[in-house]
Amino acid sequence: MAGNTFGNLFKVTTFGESHGTAMGGIIDGCPAGITIDMEAVQKELDRRKPGQSAIVTQRKESDKVQFLSGLFEGKTTGTPIGFIIPNENQKSADYSHIKDVYRPSHADYVYEQKYGIRDYRGGGRSSARETVSRVVGGAIAKQLLPQITINAFVSSVGEIFIDKPYQALDFDLTESNAVRCPDKETAEKMEAYIKEVKKQGDTVGGTITCILQNVPMGLGEPVFDKLHAELGKAMLSINAVKGFEYGSGFCGAKMKGSEHNDLFNENGTTKTNLSGGIQGGISNGMDIYFRVAFKPVATLMQSQQTINKDGKIVEMQGRGRHDACVVPRAVPIVEAMAALVIADFYLMARLNKQ
Amino acid sequence: MAGNTFGNLFKVTTFGESHGTAMGGIIDGCPAGITIDMEAVQKELDRRKPGQSAIVTQRKESDKVQFLSGLFEGKTTGTPIGFIIPNENQKSADYSHIKDVYRPSHADYVYEQKYGIRDYRGGGRSSARETVSRVVGGAIAKQLLPQITINAFVSSVGEIFIDKPYQALDFDLTESNAVRCPDKETAEKMEAYIKEVKKQGDTVGGTITCILQNVPMGLGEPVFDKLHAELGKAMLSINAVKGFEYGSGFCGAKMKGSEHNDLFNENGTTKTNLSGGIQGGISNGMDIYFRVAFKPVATLMQSQQTINKDGKIVEMQGRGRHDACVVPRAVPIVEAMAALVIADFYLMARLNKQ
Amino acid sequence: MAGNTFGNLFKVTTFGESHGTAMGGIIDGCPAGITIDMEAVQKELDRRKPGQSAIVTQRKESDKVQFLSGLFEGKTTGTPIGFIIPNENQKSADYSHIKDVYRPSHADYVYEQKYGIRDYRGGGRSSARETVSRVVGGAIAKQLLPQITINAFVSSVGEIFIDKPYQALDFDLTESNAVRCPDKETAEKMEAYIKEVKKQGDTVGGTITCILQNVPMGLGEPVFDKLHAELGKAMLSINAVKGFEYGSGFCGAKMKGSEHNDLFNENGTTKTNLSGGIQGGISNGMDIYFRVAFKPVATLMQSQQTINKDGKIVEMQGRGRHDACVVPRAVPIVEAMAALVIADFYLMARLNKQ
Amino acid sequence: MAGNTFGNLFKVTTFGESHGTAMGGIIDGCPAGITIDMEAVQKELDRRKPGQSAIVTQRKESDKVQFLSGLFEGKTTGTPIGFIIPNENQKSADYSHIKDVYRPSHADYVYEQKYGIRDYRGGGRSSARETVSRVVGGAIAKQLLPQITINAFVSSVGEIFIDKPYQALDFDLTESNAVRCPDKETAEKMEAYIKEVKKQGDTVGGTITCILQNVPMGLGEPVFDKLHAELGKAMLSINAVKGFEYGSGFCGAKMKGSEHNDLFNENGTTKTNLSGGIQGGISNGMDIYFRVAFKPVATLMQSQQTINKDGKIVEMQGRGRHDACVVPRAVPIVEAMAALVIADFYLMARLNKQ
Repeated sequence: MAGNTFGNLFKVTTFGESHGTAMGGIIDGCPAGITIDMEAVQKELDRRKPGQSAIVTQRKESDKVQFLSGLFEGKTTGTPIGFIIPNENQKSADYSHIKDVYRPSHADYVYEQKYGIRDYRGGGRSSARETVSRVVGGAIAKQLLPQITINAFVSSVGEIFIDKPYQALDFDLTESNAVRCPDKETAEKMEAYIKEVKKQGDTVGGTITCILQNVPMGLGEPVFDKLHAELGKAMLSINAVKGFEYGSGFCGAKMKGSEHNDLFNENGTTKTNLSGGIQGGISNGMDIYFRVAFKPVATLMQSQQTINKDGKIVEMQGRGRHDACVVPRAVPIVEAMAALVIADFYLMARLNKQ
Repeated sequence: MAGNTFGNLFKVTTFGESHGTAMGGIIDGCPAGITIDMEAVQKELDRRKPGQSAIVTQRKESDKVQFLSGLFEGKTTGTPIGFIIPNENQKSADYSHIKDVYRPSHADYVYEQKYGIRDYRGGGRSSARETVSRVVGGAIAKQLLPQITINAFVSSVGEIFIDKPYQALDFDLTESNAVRCPDKETAEKMEAYIKEVKKQGDTVGGTITCILQNVPMGLGEPVFDKLHAELGKAMLSINAVKGFEYGSGFCGAKMKGSEHNDLFNENGTTKTNLSGGIQGGISNGMDIYFRVAFKPVATLMQSQQTINKDGKIVEMQGRGRHDACVVPRAVPIVEAMAALVIADFYLMARLNKQ
Repeated sequence: MAGNTFGNLFKVTTFGESHGTAMGGIIDGCPAGITIDMEAVQKELDRRKPGQSAIVTQRKESDKVQFLSGLFEGKTTGTPIGFIIPNENQKSADYSHIKDVYRPSHADYVYEQKYGIRDYRGGGRSSARETVSRVVGGAIAKQLLPQITINAFVSSVGEIFIDKPYQALDFDLTESNAVRCPDKETAEKMEAYIKEVKKQGDTVGGTITCILQNVPMGLGEPVFDKLHAELGKAMLSINAVKGFEYGSGFCGAKMKGSEHNDLFNENGTTKTNLSGGIQGGISNGMDIYFRVAFKPVATLMQSQQTINKDGKIVEMQGRGRHDACVVPRAVPIVEAMAALVIADFYLMARLNKQ
Repeated sequence: MAGNTFGNLFKVTTFGESHGTAMGGIIDGCPAGITIDMEAVQKELDRRKPGQSAIVTQRKESDKVQFLSGLFEGKTTGTPIGFIIPNENQKSADYSHIKDVYRPSHADYVYEQKYGIRDYRGGGRSSARETVSRVVGGAIAKQLLPQITINAFVSSVGEIFIDKPYQALDFDLTESNAVRCPDKETAEKMEAYIKEVKKQGDTVGGTITCILQNVPMGLGEPVFDKLHAELGKAMLSINAVKGFEYGSGFCGAKMKGSEHNDLFNENGTTKTNLSGGIQGGISNGMDIYFRVAFKPVATLMQSQQTINKDGKIVEMQGRGRHDACVVPRAVPIVEAMAALVIADFYLMARLNKQ
């Protein structure tokens, strides 16, 4: 209930606050006999971790995952996989300046209203540091599904966007630049813009597009747990996300049925794919693609007005080491959440027939 | 697992195919002692039912709900509320022409791939008729939450949209026209456009905007079950939905943090509300607003190519009584799903503190 | 949460009060493609229904189940199976004499304390009539598992018990007498005793033993959801049950390890079966057997003291049509609950391996 | 699904194998603002840990719990409480002698059948070491429920049992002897008997009785999730448990209704308590009491025949450090599981009424 578990059959439950001892979690429901490539898991964590380039936060965390159970001789055993990622960088002192104030557009205020208590050392569970455990879960999920490819990339930063269909992109280039945009020219513009925004002590939003290929037909449940509904929930649960669309998305709402319908080929594939690989909540074997909108990071390196515990307006100056644009680091998180959703439905599909 | 239940504490489980005996469901977890206004429930069903105006399908269903349990002397007793809505209009013959073909952009094909069986009499569980049970659940949820107001309305049809902030609208006008658009002038344009599209045997998409007011602070869970993540899932689970955004939404992805942050007033409210009433997944007491994109209805009254069971391309002619634009009838469904989400979190918030 | 759902993957959610319009439920998660023998379902209901013999209640209910969805051309479709069983015999007047009193050892008092409301027309959800929906669910579950045989029978009534191992019994005789005891001689004694007790206006308890054969190896989860833990919960959830033991049970607590261990044969079967077919919570392919204790029915046809709403001691005279001994009618309910547990784990076992 | 989570609202998910790096878990759903006495938690672990007396295993584990999240300034924050207990005593070498054989009445064989893989280093998840995490969870649950007292004790070992009603016992004496039996004389007999059995290289079973006092009225759900059904499941999920009975239990099955009914006092309490504090699955405020049967430990310090991987009968000699009687160490585990059940229903009861 308390919302720290994702998934129904392939389940990840996470714990940990940004300024506590460790982050971690339990992956329950992973079938036995899966060979786990530990380096692949660590590589996903490395993609997410801070301090990788000039445009992201310079906070240092080695983010080394330790697996405590569920693996034997390199394989999953069917038992729960417990893991922790120690927090090396708990500079609580950094946060004393916010002990008595509520940061604008952060969860500080509502959190205290909800629980009657506030861990003022940082964002706590609302910190994006929590996503480190999602990345571990997603990295295991990807290994359950070796045939499926999941490619997310930054498709826009502020007003700058990739002006090409995804079919024209080379996903191998995503990791070639700091922004994680597979279109070189656009990536350069984005990077320059983020640096400029950062210099102003400001932040900027962006979007991530994600493409799932080779997803088998038949994943997703027809009514409340439609495949795209769970993908949407998964993405909207990532910090700073404000919107989700798949297939034709919001554009589809402007179209006519005669333009929008995907006509079949004789082999059951479709000539177009405005449906985004999902019909009635169930995968149809075509590419699944969706787009996720991220708001700008709320912590500014500028002075802002806010209120303190006494309800007085005070001036606060942003400090600490934060990202000017969150989307480059969110790319592996989007992929991880997509992998978790697919893994869950992949197992669920084993239950469909006699 | 099989995806016919919505909610964790306030749960609705539904059953029924469009061409079966009856639709129905069970509402479990509704607290005891709530006075239920039966007419209010029926009124919501009447808003959703077909045949109400010239722009929607002329199929006739009286959609009378029968409650079978869980109520005594007009109040909930804390036991599960079972209900059915008989299907009066099961003209199976209507569907014989599609027995051996898969309709484009429908769930026929994937459904058969998933389950190895096809109930060719219609959309089955994928039919929008399934939403009748959601409306019953939502109508009960609304009565658990009398202080909260939920107002959805059609904000666009095709390229026609309301060009005003929601604060400038009078929600009392939503039900005054067939399109369910509270802006009279825009409503007229939309209605004319839908009629024109219908005449062409075509269909058109649209968007619905929904505003929740007087939602108490503290609803939503900080990590995976963020309030907006569940709202997103709820909306994306409605037939034909392609996208969801809340607060600043996709526009927020283009903004800078200095523009986007909602500064506090001394009383804890915020001067702006780009956050859409939700911070870190938890309601902050401001208006919650979101927008939902619906694709055009896939059943056309035109001839289309498709494939049959033998994988041959065949011509099919749309028949039956379908909506040229689904959004007017989807308004009460959006409200119902929003009510279910809020009811669930409203109960969950009783668990926050000692 | 509210406890009206049983199962995780093969789920039954039930509704209905003994004096409402109908009982019913939804079976969700039944795989597609199972041929359902409707008569077999009705036969199970007939075994449970009142009025079958001189030793059970003479209340009349035809208990005809109506399926509303989830079946097409005699097979399951993978969609939820909704069903109702109308209550034909709602003589509310029968219960006016208990409107203001709380019956001893019934749920009336705690129910009102819990919910703040009382449906005085009868036991409501606490009535054993609720089990009619379990029997429907179990009858479908049995058809998912045609190779597994489930045989429950009355093993004791009061102090009278079958003094033979189950291997010496012919389960075909269970239905040959009113007590549902497969040992003819013991059955006659039990029947005579129940009649005598009934004449006194009294009631008596008993036990049911249940044997599951041909259960595949590997069902059950190793920690919290051990196969016998779920069987125990299932049985303890049946009205009037006070105890559960499997395999060696309470006797096993008196034994030494050298007596109790089941040594292996070369083919992996065991020479003895004190384990009761379950090792570490997981089925081992041997017979699963367990015993369930039922207390005597609390409604007596005698005068008893009790309290009324004002907390005054009053005399009450039992009325209505009740069983003098519940165990004969509980036999199909025990089987149904066992079938539900096995069906759930049977599906779950599809998830174990890569 | 995979069965490593206990509870619905107050949830404990555990991980860890006996011979892995660490045991641990996540407590999710604990309300915010509970002051946690860390020493009380450690004290419960110390009660469970091996090596405490001559009659239990001499294996040494310090069993120090480390909390990693969810606590701030000594109080719960409403976020998940992650914890680990390192395994200090992983002598994998100890187990090489069983690498290729399946121990009789252990889970080795079924585990390998189920998952297709075997971690031969020990019992893995089937080891009673797993219960260390349950004790942590239960110790937190007890602190949520300070007014409720939970007293478990050893009520029999082999044929030796306490021949007094629980009301005649002084629970303060339970911890005064190695057997955890509050009746001094019986305790001495039990201890002598266990030492004798141990000398023979044998083991013996026993029972634990548990008394819950001051449980508020109204806990438990009327149908599938009856309070005693969840208590039963909780107890049956503990290693080596074969049976559960509450209130009159199996004896109740021999009684008449006129003997068994608990008549009311004017204040709503009952004159007798054969119901065991639960009516229709709901607590009635009277003492809740139940009894749990444990089979003898399966690992003997004797030679036994068993089979190896090739299906050949081989002789095996028990080694390692095991308990001759598990019940003394199981007392805190029974209490922990009872506390988890009550905590869950305690939170659930907040949802009953408007």
